[in-house]
Amino acid sequence: MIIDTHGHYTTAPEELQAFRDAQLATLGQASATPTPAAISDDRIRESIELNQLKVLRERGGDVMLFSPKASGMEHHVLDPAVAAAWARVSNDLVHRVGELFSEHFAPVAQLPQTPGGELDGVIAELRRTVSELGFVGVNVNPDPSGTWAGKPLTDESWFPLWEAIEELDVPAMIHVSTACNPNFHTLGAHYLNADTSVFMQLLVSDLFVRFPRLRVVIPHGGGAVPYHWGRYRGLSMRYGWQEPAELLRNVYFDTCVYQQAGTDLLTSVIPTENVLFASEMLGAVRGGDPETGIAWDDTKQYVDRAGLSAAALTAVYETNARRVYPALDRRLTARGL
Amino acid sequence: MIIDTHGHYTTAPEELQAFRDAQLATLGQASATPTPAAISDDRIRESIELNQLKVLRERGGDVMLFSPKASGMEHHVLDPAVAAAWARVSNDLVHRVGELFSEHFAPVAQLPQTPGGELDGVIAELRRTVSELGFVGVNVNPDPSGTWAGKPLTDESWFPLWEAIEELDVPAMIHVSTACNPNFHTLGAHYLNADTSVFMQLLVSDLFVRFPRLRVVIPHGGGAVPYHWGRYRGLSMRYGWQEPAELLRNVYFDTCVYQQAGTDLLTSVIPTENVLFASEMLGAVRGGDPETGIAWDDTKQYVDRAGLSAAALTAVYETNARRVYPALDRRLTARGL
Repeated sequence: MIIDTHGHYTTAPEELQAFRDAQLATLGQASATPTPAAISDDRIRESIELNQLKVLRERGGDVMLFSPKASGMEHHVLDPAVAAAWARVSNDLVHRVGELFSEHFAPVAQLPQTPGGELDGVIAELRRTVSELGFVGVNVNPDPSGTWAGKPLTDESWFPLWEAIEELDVPAMIHVSTACNPNFHTLGAHYLNADTSVFMQLLVSDLFVRFPRLRVVIPHGGGAVPYHWGRYRGLSMRYGWQEPAELLRNVYFDTCVYQQAGTDLLTSVIPTENVLFASEMLGAVRGGDPETGIAWDDTKQYVDRAGLSAAALTAVYETNARRVYPALDRRLTARGL
Repeated sequence: MIIDTHGHYTTAPEELQAFRDAQLATLGQASATPTPAAISDDRIRESIELNQLKVLRERGGDVMLFSPKASGMEHHVLDPAVAAAWARVSNDLVHRVGELFSEHFAPVAQLPQTPGGELDGVIAELRRTVSELGFVGVNVNPDPSGTWAGKPLTDESWFPLWEAIEELDVPAMIHVSTACNPNFHTLGAHYLNADTSVFMQLLVSDLFVRFPRLRVVIPHGGGAVPYHWGRYRGLSMRYGWQEPAELLRNVYFDTCVYQQAGTDLLTSVIPTENVLFASEMLGAVRGGDPETGIAWDDTKQYVDRAGLSAAALTAVYETNARRVYPALDRRLTARGL
């Protein structure tokens, strides 16, 4: 079985964005809370069958972890009530995808984070999606402000969220949303910088001493981290931090690296039990390499050619995901998968 | 000849830091401008002979490009007069290193940048160091605020600096200083994020159409860029930007990547004519890998083992640097090197 651990609903019916536009148009007007337009099952089916499911099948994939569009989370909008409604509507939609295509899509939640860092609504939506709706994971934005105005996610102000996530036994994928600083291009810098920065925050903290069962997925191949693994090892030895390898009890990297050389590096530097297959397909990077004919985000092509053993491929494609996402494993097992 | 294009005076005599401390202690007191203590030639010789020169020779190197300590530039301090004095004192010291060891060290300038972005003093110090003192390159901080509060270096507010750098025909190494945001560890995140962010700023700009002879060096192996080269190619095709390869007419990457796998990736993804040998030795990452016995920043070990042809090694070790830094070439030629 091939499990793609990183997909977003980038092809959601336009009614979703219309709701968001209405939300943003009425910001600050408490009486004007918009109502989401009804979206039929057929509209959802069409948006999936012609896109993610089609491409998943063409590429030999079986199951995709599916969360709302990352750049659309927009946690920088200040109003917690707006964030709560937006997360709820977005999550309900990926939940319906998971119900309509229960053998192929497993939902992952967007949290109603805000720059102020209030966590009550965030934890409430986490519990609703995981405990009530069966979501198998959650995306956590380490920079809800979009300008890095908040505190590192190892700060104690984040602890109630980590405590709830650990209790619910779902992993957290670290994923920023739209950058609000013109120095950082959202897709070409902000995403990768966040991955790198969070790894470094974890390296100098004892977060996993406090939350030993917490599991964190760093996407986009870990930003710059595997490429500079020696730098992190050397810095740790010089400054007496934990070894980077110690983080691998709790930290996983996905394979959203869009070239063979990068995938080769990732799978040679990071133990394969810490690598999760993922494509973020129909996401930031669409189209294909004219030199190879391979779609940029068809990461299975790179993983297949990375020279891994059959056992390592099974781990990267399936068993790591089922171990790191136990709710996914239960969900698949319940369906005989 | 082996030219190390990235060294900082991390071992400067303590009088330099004492001057800086006095500067910072009297910030805002116009009458209290401190005077730098005299530093004898012997003190400078000792600081170099026991450190950078010793290690350079041990590792088989010949020449090092040498600038003031990067994290010490501290461009986030607001006062332009303080920045001007600090850059002048720091540059005069690396200039003396270059005079005392003229066959081994070539000076590279620190600029008196400030968060306000005023450029008159910056350009004056650039001209003084390059035109009067024979500096062969310059470090440019894309984030003088330390919090990314300024504009991308492709913004027109930066153009007078690029115009002067192009006119003087020295390359600019992009190098941030101390991070002033707790989310970004200076050595483990901020440096790499800056490299990644600046590459992305350049990719969506026409800076090199406007300044076709400008040459930019992105250090630390280009941050996350070579590892994600396919991501940049794919984004460029999707959004209609220039190809990343087009930037290679003006952009160079150094080899400050502290592991074999990373160096292998760098030299396989980036054409070797765009790779400059560099170690940043006695910098962020000191000590050695207990598994291999190789010092982390002994990057020649990795480059030697990267499987490059003799011609490619000559390019990476010497001829690229002499081409990208023409003032270095003239300086070496004048000494029969």
